[in-house]
Amino acid sequence: MLRPDELTAIVNVGDDLELHGLHISPDLDTITYTVAGAIDPERGWGLAGETWHAMEALGRYPRARAWFNLGDRDLATHLYRTARRAEGATPTQVAAEIGAAWDVGINLLPMTDGRFRTMLVLADGGETISFQDYFVRLQHGVAIEAIRFEQDGCELTPAARSAIERSSVVVIAPSNPLVSIGPIRALAGVDELLSGRRDSVIAVSPIVGGHALKGPADRMMTELGIESTVAGVARLYAPIASTLVIDTVDADLASDVEAAGMRCVITPTVMSSPDASRSLALACLAAGR
Amino acid sequence: MLRPDELTAIVNVGDDLELHGLHISPDLDTITYTVAGAIDPERGWGLAGETWHAMEALGRYPRARAWFNLGDRDLATHLYRTARRAEGATPTQVAAEIGAAWDVGINLLPMTDGRFRTMLVLADGGETISFQDYFVRLQHGVAIEAIRFEQDGCELTPAARSAIERSSVVVIAPSNPLVSIGPIRALAGVDELLSGRRDSVIAVSPIVGGHALKGPADRMMTELGIESTVAGVARLYAPIASTLVIDTVDADLASDVEAAGMRCVITPTVMSSPDASRSLALACLAAGR
Repeated sequence: MLRPDELTAIVNVGDDLELHGLHISPDLDTITYTVAGAIDPERGWGLAGETWHAMEALGRYPRARAWFNLGDRDLATHLYRTARRAEGATPTQVAAEIGAAWDVGINLLPMTDGRFRTMLVLADGGETISFQDYFVRLQHGVAIEAIRFEQDGCELTPAARSAIERSSVVVIAPSNPLVSIGPIRALAGVDELLSGRRDSVIAVSPIVGGHALKGPADRMMTELGIESTVAGVARLYAPIASTLVIDTVDADLASDVEAAGMRCVITPTVMSSPDASRSLALACLAAGR
Repeated sequence: MLRPDELTAIVNVGDDLELHGLHISPDLDTITYTVAGAIDPERGWGLAGETWHAMEALGRYPRARAWFNLGDRDLATHLYRTARRAEGATPTQVAAEIGAAWDVGINLLPMTDGRFRTMLVLADGGETISFQDYFVRLQHGVAIEAIRFEQDGCELTPAARSAIERSSVVVIAPSNPLVSIGPIRALAGVDELLSGRRDSVIAVSPIVGGHALKGPADRMMTELGIESTVAGVARLYAPIASTLVIDTVDADLASDVEAAGMRCVITPTVMSSPDASRSLALACLAAGR
């Protein structure tokens, strides 16, 4: 088995936002809280047993931007991150400190220490909005026509580069390929790093039976002209990963995955329990070794 | 009687601080919550019925600066202020918005829209620290040797200037004369404005029986060589106010107040109940008219 400290997660920060003066890193926090066993399992974000007194009180102020929910205990993480960033700590340092405070064991790395923002161009009118505006404020209920990454001078961090270079297996998690994995790939050199060791890069399809298990990945793919199937996913990942892990419900599309240039592993991919998650992880490691 | 909108409070912002990325204005908030009837009457700051989940959660992070307590509902005020300032609203606008949200009725004005910070030079070693470092972190348990105001380009706001010019009576509240009233007086032109209408400027002594009712005003005065009596207060205020209102316990010092150049009104000044506060306010108005 893998020791926790042998596992490194390289995490998208394109969803980060500044709100009320606070620096918020939703993907890092979600992974921290999840690995710590503190996530709210129903919502899939924020802390279990959370209270919302600050948000409720914010409702008193008519001009407040109260559409992004911040729990009272979760606020502490944003206060801490904001304070440490103001003191000069890098996002990488702060993520490590927060991970240590939650005793996560694994290495949690933001993909970059620079300011990277995922922006979405709406189909209706062409307005460009931030990821959280799209995802939370508009509840991803509008069609997009393009994704833009604002990333002046952003680089993959040395720690993240080293993890990609040295790990025996790289697993591309079943995240949204366009707005969760896409930002990492948009950093200079990442696709080259991965294609250089493509044999041991394993992707897990986020599309199961033609649909995303959660979130708008399927619609976004369709809106951008990408087939919302495991074959569509395979065409996105073929340049950088040798193998696509697909769910058993998609077994009949295995030949399409292979036609796109990827090996295909067929196994249950829905992480409905810790056992199911463990089996999937072991299948990924086996495929990469 | 005075209608609420006939009353304007010009408020010290030298105690303001930036913490965790948030802009905190303790004096404005204390007055807002007090006038709104929402203040915690025991503590004298923050909201009644407050919870502390964010602060408790901040304790998880070893490097967090958790010495300044921020209640969960109170945090909303700081989040709102910080967001509005980032959007370009002036402190004056934000104070009015927060006051309106709490339905305070009176006009609440920060003394300046600039960045003004009260700094204290410690007697032991000469280190210079911020007001909140002194007042909250060190629990004002150290001697000071000087007060310094950082106020590059700060000006009394036009609204505050107009209030001083147009009000029939100006009352200097029984606040700390050095670090609560002192910052307002340190703005260019304020002492001149007040001395120009000195007959209707009435000060209430914060020193009763030789001591401050709360806070370190008496010790600070002594440490800076100012007698901690109503006579010491009179010597501070004589240039700008015609009249000092002193408590009945200090009646025997009335001649010392007059010797310092101020008329003296002797009346109960301890605001132990709404009725006592009302009587004191009426005495101030009568003295100024």
